[in-house]
Amino acid sequence: ASSTFGTVHAQTSPTIRWRLVSSFPKSLDTIFGAADMLADRVKELTDGKFQIKTFAAGEVVPGLQVLDAVQAGTVEVGHTAGYYFVGKSPTLAFDTAVPFGLTARQQNAWLYHGGGLELMRDVYADFKCINFPGGNTGAQMGGWFKKEVKGVADLKGLKMRIPGLGGQVMARLGAVPQTIAGGDIYPALERGTIDATEWVGPYDDEKLGFYKIAKYYYYPGFWEAGPGLSFIVNTDEWKKLPKAYQLAFEVAAAEANVHMLAKYDALNPAALQRLTQKGVKLRKYSNAILDAALKASLDLYDDEAAKDAKYKKVYTQWKKFRADSYRWSATTDLGFEQYAFLKK
Amino acid sequence: ASSTFGTVHAQTSPTIRWRLVSSFPKSLDTIFGAADMLADRVKELTDGKFQIKTFAAGEVVPGLQVLDAVQAGTVEVGHTAGYYFVGKSPTLAFDTAVPFGLTARQQNAWLYHGGGLELMRDVYADFKCINFPGGNTGAQMGGWFKKEVKGVADLKGLKMRIPGLGGQVMARLGAVPQTIAGGDIYPALERGTIDATEWVGPYDDEKLGFYKIAKYYYYPGFWEAGPGLSFIVNTDEWKKLPKAYQLAFEVAAAEANVHMLAKYDALNPAALQRLTQKGVKLRKYSNAILDAALKASLDLYDDEAAKDAKYKKVYTQWKKFRADSYRWSATTDLGFEQYAFLKK
Repeated sequence: ASSTFGTVHAQTSPTIRWRLVSSFPKSLDTIFGAADMLADRVKELTDGKFQIKTFAAGEVVPGLQVLDAVQAGTVEVGHTAGYYFVGKSPTLAFDTAVPFGLTARQQNAWLYHGGGLELMRDVYADFKCINFPGGNTGAQMGGWFKKEVKGVADLKGLKMRIPGLGGQVMARLGAVPQTIAGGDIYPALERGTIDATEWVGPYDDEKLGFYKIAKYYYYPGFWEAGPGLSFIVNTDEWKKLPKAYQLAFEVAAAEANVHMLAKYDALNPAALQRLTQKGVKLRKYSNAILDAALKASLDLYDDEAAKDAKYKKVYTQWKKFRADSYRWSATTDLGFEQYAFLKK
Repeated sequence: ASSTFGTVHAQTSPTIRWRLVSSFPKSLDTIFGAADMLADRVKELTDGKFQIKTFAAGEVVPGLQVLDAVQAGTVEVGHTAGYYFVGKSPTLAFDTAVPFGLTARQQNAWLYHGGGLELMRDVYADFKCINFPGGNTGAQMGGWFKKEVKGVADLKGLKMRIPGLGGQVMARLGAVPQTIAGGDIYPALERGTIDATEWVGPYDDEKLGFYKIAKYYYYPGFWEAGPGLSFIVNTDEWKKLPKAYQLAFEVAAAEANVHMLAKYDALNPAALQRLTQKGVKLRKYSNAILDAALKASLDLYDDEAAKDAKYKKVYTQWKKFRADSYRWSATTDLGFEQYAFLKK
């Protein structure tokens, strides 16, 4: 038998070849690696019969056209962040992160066991997709600044690379948000086209070298407390899969989900240490800035809810989940972390 | 074809039947459910050929004899907590939790991508087992008390149901730790045989009704900041499995791992609210108690490391991982949570 794993799988199983397009470059190896992990697992679990070939952003379609490509059936599956597509449906933000939203643990709790997955699947169905939680970065950092920002006044007119909803909140605080692709940020910062930029966290940020130009590294990245990635599959292609292939995909996605966060949590600590050894100065956003940003965020949600019935439905359910989760997380988890992490 | 899922799997795949013994009762449905989830997934992924039947504690062997049963080959697989077996090897505590140890996220990071799994597999190999991360409860609560405990003096002579390393730390603080099985705690508390007890968190604790007798509900449960459960498999049985069945088991374990934590995080918030509505008074351990407990814990680690070479090896690697992780987690994750969770 030519079977890789012996006698387990039948010669009668169909061979299926899919293309997965990622919204991310291979240089974001922890994120991109989750797509490779999914593909490898699915292949192994189906004795090599269900083959998913992964492509980085730009290889088949640009990173921000992944949803369109999956919806059109150009490719069968994508690995992306729902919030890239808030222009199509603002509700998709909840699949990834909204400012002052859920942490990574809370995002998993909401999606897997808090009714979130059903709600988000209803949204993705409008784009002929079915979604599966597919990774999380943990709370991102709040960005690199050339000068300290102490109060809201320091944000006035500040040109910051910060796309999406975080950018909208920053704009409400007086900053001038910019959307710039990863590879173009460093030169923009160097030339002074921008004064500040956010990206991901220590492990990814270090590679882009921002610390050489902007020494102040702020936290928390309040607009991305626990951004979740998703695998999105074209609904027609999903229905064509044998049930066992669907199961293999679903369980492999869950494994990729937990592994991405674990990998970031294992890689970021050493990267943070290297950065501080290079002279990076860690700074925490002041409560004045956080208070203003929280108010702007709540206003933003209300504005969207007033305009969009589907947004309102998801937001209403999500908002209660968030309030209940915050209350619980503020007890033993936060109580432990506040004491233990800050103890010298 | 009699195949449940059509033509995917061969009739030549071997049918394998395993028994899984859990260290937990079915009443801890979130924990026990992870074993059922694993069994269901493995069966589905192998087209019904690899069947794992789950048994609650006491059905085949008592909960605290799961490691022995797997080691002896009485059963093929167990679902347990390594720290139940510190009497056999103190190093097994790191597989679950030690006082002032890792959070749930950090435990996954250590095991999956921080070298922890290799280290723990070396320890379990002495018991003819191979282990797979199999769930986490998140930080547990610090227990139910009839009277407030404000300082270390209030712990003097206090009879508290708290087994394991947490109990050893409490003993060093002057308390009198007791080991009592779940079903016997309520009557002991009612009769006054004990003054206090810890169990898990709101969702599980509510069912045992402690709030009716002991109104003060403390946090954080510093001895269990992110206790991890494990699936442990007899090494000989593992080697007999077809490769595809091994893969199905491994990926299903990862899925069960992420789902258990997500389920606790989805269930605990409402349970906490119900408890506070019933008059439960939330209290935070004072820094004086936490400081004394931290010192006692560090002394305990050092004492064990001086006695046991394998413990020392694991502890040394783990200690650095913990320090690095705490430093990173203290920035953006904690910074966000401190602000957002506590904001009224």
